[in-house]
Amino acid sequence: MSETNRQFVLAELPQGHLTPAHFRLVEGERPTAGPGEVVVRTRYVSLDAANRAWMQGATYRSALAAGDVMAGGALAEVVESNAPELAPGDLVFADTGWQDYAALPARRLSKLPKLEPMTHLLSVYGVAGLTAYFGLLECGRPQAGETVVVSAAAGSVGSIVGQIARIQGCRVIGIAGGAEKGRWLTDELGFDAAVDYKAADFKRQLREAVGEGIDVYFDNVGGEVFEACLFGMKTFGRIACCGAVSQYDGEAPRHGPRGVPGLIVTKRLTLRGFIVSDFDDRREAALADLQAWVGAGKLKVQEDVIDGFENLPQALVGLLHGENRGKRMVRV
Amino acid sequence: MSETNRQFVLAELPQGHLTPAHFRLVEGERPTAGPGEVVVRTRYVSLDAANRAWMQGATYRSALAAGDVMAGGALAEVVESNAPELAPGDLVFADTGWQDYAALPARRLSKLPKLEPMTHLLSVYGVAGLTAYFGLLECGRPQAGETVVVSAAAGSVGSIVGQIARIQGCRVIGIAGGAEKGRWLTDELGFDAAVDYKAADFKRQLREAVGEGIDVYFDNVGGEVFEACLFGMKTFGRIACCGAVSQYDGEAPRHGPRGVPGLIVTKRLTLRGFIVSDFDDRREAALADLQAWVGAGKLKVQEDVIDGFENLPQALVGLLHGENRGKRMVRV
Repeated sequence: MSETNRQFVLAELPQGHLTPAHFRLVEGERPTAGPGEVVVRTRYVSLDAANRAWMQGATYRSALAAGDVMAGGALAEVVESNAPELAPGDLVFADTGWQDYAALPARRLSKLPKLEPMTHLLSVYGVAGLTAYFGLLECGRPQAGETVVVSAAAGSVGSIVGQIARIQGCRVIGIAGGAEKGRWLTDELGFDAAVDYKAADFKRQLREAVGEGIDVYFDNVGGEVFEACLFGMKTFGRIACCGAVSQYDGEAPRHGPRGVPGLIVTKRLTLRGFIVSDFDDRREAALADLQAWVGAGKLKVQEDVIDGFENLPQALVGLLHGENRGKRMVRV
Repeated sequence: MSETNRQFVLAELPQGHLTPAHFRLVEGERPTAGPGEVVVRTRYVSLDAANRAWMQGATYRSALAAGDVMAGGALAEVVESNAPELAPGDLVFADTGWQDYAALPARRLSKLPKLEPMTHLLSVYGVAGLTAYFGLLECGRPQAGETVVVSAAAGSVGSIVGQIARIQGCRVIGIAGGAEKGRWLTDELGFDAAVDYKAADFKRQLREAVGEGIDVYFDNVGGEVFEACLFGMKTFGRIACCGAVSQYDGEAPRHGPRGVPGLIVTKRLTLRGFIVSDFDDRREAALADLQAWVGAGKLKVQEDVIDGFENLPQALVGLLHGENRGKRMVRV
């Protein structure tokens, strides 16, 4: 076990687009476990659009500041323990940040099951899968035969949302960037249609794909795509607000989408924002469903694993540019 | 009974602010009842911000066009009936439009109870009272001890929302235009605080009145007030979207409020739009509650009755400028 601890520090807060130059690689000492703490070794770092939102200000977690070790969730292995509930070799999901080792209070961690491949603990059985599951089923409440639209549909959450909606008997339309991602959604994942938000005729494509209107919109992006879907909602439609990735990588937006709150009233819509931990008390039941669907071949798991700690900054920047397909992570 | 039928016709659709010049007074013949129809005589016309929204395009009802008799709900008396369920002398609430007489299918009407004063059937026991009741209790779901904010608080709906929230044990802050309305809300209606949206320091006033944040925001106005409240919401707060009067009297807004959908996610808010007829199946229970509160002196009814059919256009224009206190109506 190395005594050094590689760390990516946020060198400065980005004003516009995030670039790898906003990070600085430093080396510290491996931490030791204080009372009730464990030391974990980071195995796979999860890359998420939310990482960028944390640089904009307080969200559901406190904001990142220049000089901080870059925050991020990871699959990590306990290497030292001062707590009875965790032993060396145990796997946990933890906000280790972008570093080889972190010392963390054991009470904030829970031991993960061992399964193959381990990476599924970050994708379908991790935050991405549970976010898709609870956001769609609890906030979206889709009924068989309804039309479900999901944005960032080729991403870690969106690709699972669409497949769960299909399992519920819905017609599913994915919004993603580029024709290639669209083909993947329809041909490989079974989406009924895909719409390219980068196309000049995006709104027309969306209207045609949607037909009579959208019953459930699962929003990962905000901005103009959110607005277009808002205008396409059916009466009594539901919007699950999961994220606003189009708004993260730049300055704070000057304006919100048109139609708010007017269309919410006239169409009697329900919009609900959530984060996955709001549903922690029902995690086990959700995991059982996800495992059953994966086992039955109804839910395909797509992962985008990049090797090497040093590639973390570029991996996040690329994710914000939409280059990933499915769940992106970096193997440390 | 007069044989002539005064009518206000929408002479042209307004592009900017509505003025009395957008209406034209004409005289037609009193209609007669076809099969299954009744003829009603308009007694009190309800003035509502929604009247203006109907000129902007399709809402929950089809849009108004130039040349149409101006639409509007009214308390009306049956004067001729070709339907067994209604007899001359019966009172109904009907979309008569702005005219002395209307012929309407009886099946779309329901007989109202006779009570004194009759005007309460348009205010607290009519659309305004039921809108306040269902919007607050079903969409807002306030709990005792929570902080409730309502905009257009001196209006027909807002003044009732605030009082019902007080009855539920909430701390209530009303947003209204001008110090005089504010004093009325706190001194007469028992609001805990009032905030003047026309004041230069509106946002500061709101922040101070709100303290730790808003649990329930009942939105009647949209626009900048909506945005300010959105930024002031607590985690897991609820927004009842009832209308967007700030957006009705002018051109369609170019932009929506900032913070959508970003703050909806990070604060895990629920926004729900509604119109009163969505809750028709529970109307009787709501009326029983409202009557009990009025009877016990817990809910004060404020009405703003203007005399004279000819004053309808100015009464609506004035309402859009916020000159009313409580439920505005015109006695025909």
